[in-house]
Amino acid sequence: MQKVVVFGEVMLRLATEEHERFSQAEKLNVTYGGGETNVAISLNNFNIHTGLVTRLPDNDMGRACTNYIKQFGIDTKDIVYGGKRLGLYYLETGAVHRGSKVVYDREDSSFATLQRGMIDWETVFEGVDLFHWSGLSAALSADTTSVLEEAITVAHHKGITISCDINLRENLWNYGKTPNDVMPSLVSMCDIVFGNEYDAEHAMGIEVDDSIRGKFTNDSFIQSSQLVMKTYPKIKKIITTRRGNINASNNTLRGLVFDGSGLIETPTYSITHIVDRVGGGDAFTAGILYGLLMWPEDCNRILNFGIAASCLKHTVKGDSNQVTIEEVEEVMNKMQK
Amino acid sequence: MQKVVVFGEVMLRLATEEHERFSQAEKLNVTYGGGETNVAISLNNFNIHTGLVTRLPDNDMGRACTNYIKQFGIDTKDIVYGGKRLGLYYLETGAVHRGSKVVYDREDSSFATLQRGMIDWETVFEGVDLFHWSGLSAALSADTTSVLEEAITVAHHKGITISCDINLRENLWNYGKTPNDVMPSLVSMCDIVFGNEYDAEHAMGIEVDDSIRGKFTNDSFIQSSQLVMKTYPKIKKIITTRRGNINASNNTLRGLVFDGSGLIETPTYSITHIVDRVGGGDAFTAGILYGLLMWPEDCNRILNFGIAASCLKHTVKGDSNQVTIEEVEEVMNKMQK
Amino acid sequence: MQKVVVFGEVMLRLATEEHERFSQAEKLNVTYGGGETNVAISLNNFNIHTGLVTRLPDNDMGRACTNYIKQFGIDTKDIVYGGKRLGLYYLETGAVHRGSKVVYDREDSSFATLQRGMIDWETVFEGVDLFHWSGLSAALSADTTSVLEEAITVAHHKGITISCDINLRENLWNYGKTPNDVMPSLVSMCDIVFGNEYDAEHAMGIEVDDSIRGKFTNDSFIQSSQLVMKTYPKIKKIITTRRGNINASNNTLRGLVFDGSGLIETPTYSITHIVDRVGGGDAFTAGILYGLLMWPEDCNRILNFGIAASCLKHTVKGDSNQVTIEEVEEVMNKMQK
Amino acid sequence: MQKVVVFGEVMLRLATEEHERFSQAEKLNVTYGGGETNVAISLNNFNIHTGLVTRLPDNDMGRACTNYIKQFGIDTKDIVYGGKRLGLYYLETGAVHRGSKVVYDREDSSFATLQRGMIDWETVFEGVDLFHWSGLSAALSADTTSVLEEAITVAHHKGITISCDINLRENLWNYGKTPNDVMPSLVSMCDIVFGNEYDAEHAMGIEVDDSIRGKFTNDSFIQSSQLVMKTYPKIKKIITTRRGNINASNNTLRGLVFDGSGLIETPTYSITHIVDRVGGGDAFTAGILYGLLMWPEDCNRILNFGIAASCLKHTVKGDSNQVTIEEVEEVMNKMQK
Amino acid sequence: MQKVVVFGEVMLRLATEEHERFSQAEKLNVTYGGGETNVAISLNNFNIHTGLVTRLPDNDMGRACTNYIKQFGIDTKDIVYGGKRLGLYYLETGAVHRGSKVVYDREDSSFATLQRGMIDWETVFEGVDLFHWSGLSAALSADTTSVLEEAITVAHHKGITISCDINLRENLWNYGKTPNDVMPSLVSMCDIVFGNEYDAEHAMGIEVDDSIRGKFTNDSFIQSSQLVMKTYPKIKKIITTRRGNINASNNTLRGLVFDGSGLIETPTYSITHIVDRVGGGDAFTAGILYGLLMWPEDCNRILNFGIAASCLKHTVKGDSNQVTIEEVEEVMNKMQK
Amino acid sequence: MQKVVVFGEVMLRLATEEHERFSQAEKLNVTYGGGETNVAISLNNFNIHTGLVTRLPDNDMGRACTNYIKQFGIDTKDIVYGGKRLGLYYLETGAVHRGSKVVYDREDSSFATLQRGMIDWETVFEGVDLFHWSGLSAALSADTTSVLEEAITVAHHKGITISCDINLRENLWNYGKTPNDVMPSLVSMCDIVFGNEYDAEHAMGIEVDDSIRGKFTNDSFIQSSQLVMKTYPKIKKIITTRRGNINASNNTLRGLVFDGSGLIETPTYSITHIVDRVGGGDAFTAGILYGLLMWPEDCNRILNFGIAASCLKHTVKGDSNQVTIEEVEEVMNKMQK
Repeated sequence: MQKVVVFGEVMLRLATEEHERFSQAEKLNVTYGGGETNVAISLNNFNIHTGLVTRLPDNDMGRACTNYIKQFGIDTKDIVYGGKRLGLYYLETGAVHRGSKVVYDREDSSFATLQRGMIDWETVFEGVDLFHWSGLSAALSADTTSVLEEAITVAHHKGITISCDINLRENLWNYGKTPNDVMPSLVSMCDIVFGNEYDAEHAMGIEVDDSIRGKFTNDSFIQSSQLVMKTYPKIKKIITTRRGNINASNNTLRGLVFDGSGLIETPTYSITHIVDRVGGGDAFTAGILYGLLMWPEDCNRILNFGIAASCLKHTVKGDSNQVTIEEVEEVMNKMQK
Repeated sequence: MQKVVVFGEVMLRLATEEHERFSQAEKLNVTYGGGETNVAISLNNFNIHTGLVTRLPDNDMGRACTNYIKQFGIDTKDIVYGGKRLGLYYLETGAVHRGSKVVYDREDSSFATLQRGMIDWETVFEGVDLFHWSGLSAALSADTTSVLEEAITVAHHKGITISCDINLRENLWNYGKTPNDVMPSLVSMCDIVFGNEYDAEHAMGIEVDDSIRGKFTNDSFIQSSQLVMKTYPKIKKIITTRRGNINASNNTLRGLVFDGSGLIETPTYSITHIVDRVGGGDAFTAGILYGLLMWPEDCNRILNFGIAASCLKHTVKGDSNQVTIEEVEEVMNKMQK
Repeated sequence: MQKVVVFGEVMLRLATEEHERFSQAEKLNVTYGGGETNVAISLNNFNIHTGLVTRLPDNDMGRACTNYIKQFGIDTKDIVYGGKRLGLYYLETGAVHRGSKVVYDREDSSFATLQRGMIDWETVFEGVDLFHWSGLSAALSADTTSVLEEAITVAHHKGITISCDINLRENLWNYGKTPNDVMPSLVSMCDIVFGNEYDAEHAMGIEVDDSIRGKFTNDSFIQSSQLVMKTYPKIKKIITTRRGNINASNNTLRGLVFDGSGLIETPTYSITHIVDRVGGGDAFTAGILYGLLMWPEDCNRILNFGIAASCLKHTVKGDSNQVTIEEVEEVMNKMQK
Repeated sequence: MQKVVVFGEVMLRLATEEHERFSQAEKLNVTYGGGETNVAISLNNFNIHTGLVTRLPDNDMGRACTNYIKQFGIDTKDIVYGGKRLGLYYLETGAVHRGSKVVYDREDSSFATLQRGMIDWETVFEGVDLFHWSGLSAALSADTTSVLEEAITVAHHKGITISCDINLRENLWNYGKTPNDVMPSLVSMCDIVFGNEYDAEHAMGIEVDDSIRGKFTNDSFIQSSQLVMKTYPKIKKIITTRRGNINASNNTLRGLVFDGSGLIETPTYSITHIVDRVGGGDAFTAGILYGLLMWPEDCNRILNFGIAASCLKHTVKGDSNQVTIEEVEEVMNKMQK
Repeated sequence: MQKVVVFGEVMLRLATEEHERFSQAEKLNVTYGGGETNVAISLNNFNIHTGLVTRLPDNDMGRACTNYIKQFGIDTKDIVYGGKRLGLYYLETGAVHRGSKVVYDREDSSFATLQRGMIDWETVFEGVDLFHWSGLSAALSADTTSVLEEAITVAHHKGITISCDINLRENLWNYGKTPNDVMPSLVSMCDIVFGNEYDAEHAMGIEVDDSIRGKFTNDSFIQSSQLVMKTYPKIKKIITTRRGNINASNNTLRGLVFDGSGLIETPTYSITHIVDRVGGGDAFTAGILYGLLMWPEDCNRILNFGIAASCLKHTVKGDSNQVTIEEVEEVMNKMQK
Repeated sequence: MQKVVVFGEVMLRLATEEHERFSQAEKLNVTYGGGETNVAISLNNFNIHTGLVTRLPDNDMGRACTNYIKQFGIDTKDIVYGGKRLGLYYLETGAVHRGSKVVYDREDSSFATLQRGMIDWETVFEGVDLFHWSGLSAALSADTTSVLEEAITVAHHKGITISCDINLRENLWNYGKTPNDVMPSLVSMCDIVFGNEYDAEHAMGIEVDDSIRGKFTNDSFIQSSQLVMKTYPKIKKIITTRRGNINASNNTLRGLVFDGSGLIETPTYSITHIVDRVGGGDAFTAGILYGLLMWPEDCNRILNFGIAASCLKHTVKGDSNQVTIEEVEEVMNKMQK
């Protein structure tokens, strides 16, 4: 049985109910999530044994968070406890012309103040097949970036497949570095990268030609991905989604993979009555990672599995995808008829 | 004032809230329903005095169920009490690509263990104009099938109009008989049948020509219905719906009646933001029965009333349709402009 | 800083949850609102200091109502207390083929029994730039109509801009007068009127030509508005919306202004997944009034701001619009691309 | 099987949740009740066929109310529909030092505007054994008092046992009459009266001796009851409770009956963690009436059944008592050990 | 680190909210529990690695149950899947004079139809220090009793400490055997028994002297325990609680241990405002087992820890105790001052 | 009309429902509060115009907080916006043996990072009669302490009455100072102090005699208060409560004032069924301040008003007391009978 480890922050998510605005909320729904955690939960739901490495405060809220993620089967043995507070974010779910809103409150969280040496990566990576991380951890602080280097280096030396979701959110980068300052050396050790033309330019230091900047066509993705692979020869696959934002209740979605030789793409899926869009990207990532572990040679199947998983996520409340392999395959099969 | 009796199982329905998955549910919404009960509630909402014959456990849950259905005016005087348990089902409401899910837990229920002789059908049918039953009762056990025979025979001898909803759910037939083993003799005493080409073949023993099998066109319905009427001369009308399943939140619906001479059909109604699809068929059945009692000669009006009633059901939470005659007619009238 | 005063009834709104029908409701959601109050709340959300003049019962429910509206910054110093009861209405939110339903219970409310002389209008209007009222207050009783006359006369003499939303709801006019009996003299002192061809004929005493009656085209609006302005020379702008009612969950909306010289109109906005339609018109009115105060010369901007504000309201639960200027402008800008 | 009819107003009860104050309530719990309705529901729960005569508005709220009470088996065939509105009351449940609060909004309700001749009392009373009414109906309006006279006179002539709960709430008497103006002639036709020394003086016109006024001892009850029986020779039993109000969460309760010859009393029951006190008196009344129908000769058993029923009501949310005969007897038996 | 295994049924618990009666419930709260599972959850909360051996249906409800218990850290690797249904029970929480009510619906559950050979006990018991079971499993069916024999025999041969909670509920014994038919041979292999004088007589075949039957004094417990130990020489400790049932909201509790030489008892703890009494006994059992593993020689500390843990359970909603070692010790310490 | 200003932090309060533990919470109830804010809300409920000076983040959560407190009439004109985050705390309401739990997450909040010069105290204090602050603000950071100095100095020079609640929570003092380092100079400018013997020793630098340390008798309070007044001659009254903690659901409370000449005390109030204890002390403070403004000479009335107000707070959910003057007086009067 294959084993995956992810590294990243888990936050308390406080969401208003039924499209209420923040100032209307008398109650907030409690779940716990974060980009990498969402991937870990999805993978466990696909029966891939996946552990989470993170840091939580040693208080009741930290323990409540651990209990929450244990229900999905996440291996929590490598979580370290300490620091001052649980990072959190407030979510207001939009509709139609009103987009969803997120207010982050994650500075100085236990995770953001994690230090090099706190995690015994040698032990963490024993028997592990795949390690997944994201650019979110590099955005938070110099400390978390340093811990990322530590982790990726160990994983690289152990020959573990490394997956990176660029996940570029510029408003989180507040500690004096830009993505292009720190991401390239981290990405250079990775095998699989989730990112598009914009990410290539802004987080992988690729000089994109003016003719394709801001285009987001199949061609622009191929061109930028070729440049990425030239710069980062270890990368085997570059993967991304294209989202059509008809309105906050109605989106379209399709997936693209460039594997060095050519482009593979899915049909466009329509998601007409969105229940909860948060984590849609993480559900895609998890679907792709599952596919890579199961059918490494079948890029088309991998990609369609990822997009179908992401579509299903939009119908599930909370950050993480609560679906089975069979449910994803049913959506894939219907779409491909 | 006309009087109707229906016979069938009432179950506890435990539904997750707001599209939650079963494993996310901290609360389950409680209602009580079942195909025939839903018909009875609808008819009472249309001011047709309708009684329910069923069996419930003699405990707090059985009594809670009786109270629940009494609020709609159902005559509960012929309910018998006994047996071990209240049948129940769990419901998870889907959205978009994720279909709704039902987990049944109804084996060995008080209804499924009902015995011949427990109900005094002669008394039940006094002054009754119409008796409605469904194939669900024949699916549960040899015992309930035997009670059905008892009931239908008495109703037939008393000259009561008998209506049957074939309602074929193969996963419920677990006691060693197939629908074609037991349904034909029951159906042969009926005047009105709700069913399509598939039901004709699998529950009424009709040999359908290969050229129409699996077609579900107007022609195939006419052909199969003609064969049914040849085999079952007492049947006056065969009625069905065609549902277009765009996705779990968006369906289309239209109705068909074959009355021996020709086909009547409604326009296609679009139901774009489904609130609760369960019981949509029962709402149709109730609408048709209401129409048959009110305007027996006006098949077009009957059929459109049934489809409009069913459309409205999709906007109402719970198993049963909570609408008035006026509300149904308003939808009919808008549609026919 | 500009200052606005509105006059009208605030009611308790008791709404069923999640599309439940009245008879299914075990709980009712509590908010407080009314056409003019909704305008006042919106304006405060746009940072326009707006006071409400109304009458509430001197009991716990009256005080709860005052607290509720204070949270939005409404100036409540001119509210008077007395009378027997808080007016209220019950709301059931529809979906698709089932329209929303309102049951009013507002007769003999503290507001409807307000008497001339109870409010010191001279003090109320000190330093005020704009006074907004609606035809709802004229519909309730001869007393409220008399108070309206008192208010409008004082405002007129003080040279305050007066805005009137005709808001014609014939089922509320039960005290023996028709709109055409009392509205014309009130409207004659107004500068801005929200109303369409139908309102012109039925509440402003305009004889509309048979060729345009019931038409609701751009031409019919221009013609009827020209007639209105001829009759009421003080009126500077006549404003209305056109709503396309695809179904109860899906509407379209556009706005029209006639300013004496020509017609200005917005594109058609589509609102595909309505959360709460109540107060959509009031949100439009508030948007327009905000625009008139900010950019009095830019009719196009005013009108698009109003329609965008109204679109957003359809995504917000409750009677009143809970959005900021920035959010409205974001919708406007997207639409105009 | 014995048959009871009660007459009185059913109101919508809007209660805050979990001890919230009115101004804190974002939701209000919906039930329907009223003194006499509560008695009717209790009696049906004790398997006594009981009908309610009342008047409700012919709108969705009136129908929701009828559905609500039908669930308990109340015979609703004699309800008449019309008038303007459903009476209602707001309830805030107190705790410890903070008493519960009720805000009534029942003026001009459909019931309060009921007219003589609207109800066919001859038909209503066919086959009826006991008629129960209360002083609440006499408090509302001259009209309802007149209807009461009509009803009591018919019941009296038919030889039906008549029970009256004085239920004196002075703040409801606003139509220009005092209880002593109208109650005596109504009470003179009754067989059973629920009332104490205060009621005797203020609603039955009895001149109570200064030595006992305001005493509420066993002696004072005997003395005042003797005077009542002298004045109203038809009365067979006078029944009351004594409540000790330790605080809003903790009460004591005991019962007294004077049957002309002597006093019977129960032990003092302690109710330490009150869930919902509203309707505690009605539950007592229903228990007594049940006892009178079942064991007319056993005053001790009747009285203890009434008090035990009332104790149980304090543990049940809503206006009405939701308990069975067996549950009441279990409490009685425990208490008497 | 010590390791514990428990064996028993996990059921879906459907509880009404806020003291509602079953017939009032519009929602039911969902948790999962059962006597032995509750013990396992408590032990995990005390940081004792505890696994559960049970059988669940292979459907969505079975998986939801597994997820639920995983959150507490229960080792679920030895759960087997199959059978028809998840056992369940309905709970209505009482107050004051109204006791809580349970309606079981657990017949033919996946657990009750578990067969000998389905569980590989040799593997289950590897490295295990303590095995805990209860009389509930012997009550359900001959099959589960046979599986118990299988388990206890293996544990006995491996020298694992065996703990048994007699947990005698006579209404569950419906398969033709009495407790005294099957329990003695099972109990004879146990080291620790939770049970009192009644259990000794009815489930351990002890002939209790008439002088102590029904007494429940310290003396009667000592005498009966001495007889038990004579009959079952392997038993080292007999443990029980004495509950004083002032009313459904207010209980007292104390604990007793007989260890062969003498009686140890705790002070009487008062629990004045019970939140949820279900599982109070299981919390005691878990506290005792924790104490036995930690301080095997300190019977007084063990017993007080057990009673303090049980007291805390009465303040926690759900079947299982959600408290830490520190919280239990704080209560112990306060009590012993 | 008298005017009060308070200064302090408002936090988001996230409370579990119905005694749930943190790890059980699927929803958290949202209110906003803080010691000084609670005082301000209470005073507004007593019709004293009270403003709050604080700092909130300039984001949706900051604005939601402002809206929340505006509903109670708090003057919010002097709130400043900026900084990173809204301070918050998690609350779990205990019962019986399980105490309530608070987890603070308020470090680096917008308030804690407030700087000298950000608030224009001269303007704030225009027309103000009383200024209230608490030791909580001195506990948070050197910055807030410095702002306190700034505020108190201005208020002192303006001759405003200054009230200080020592409110000593040692676990909040984490910036390197002890209360005795910074509180004395602040307290020296105050007129009214809320504090007991412990506070005198640990926050006012008083050397308490060993004979009274830890005593908390009337004598010890008198002795320590005399020492305080000797050291701080401006102080006119020292006020405190004595709480008896029977268990988490049941407390007793009484109040003490030392006014330089002698001790005044209230009877002991019993609070048997606590709904929400948080803010009980703030409700007392507000009651006292109200009394001081109304009846400055009647210490007995002031003190009983304060204790009665505090008792009522224990029955109200949320941080702040939602009661009227009349309700407080009713409790006072009952108690004094």
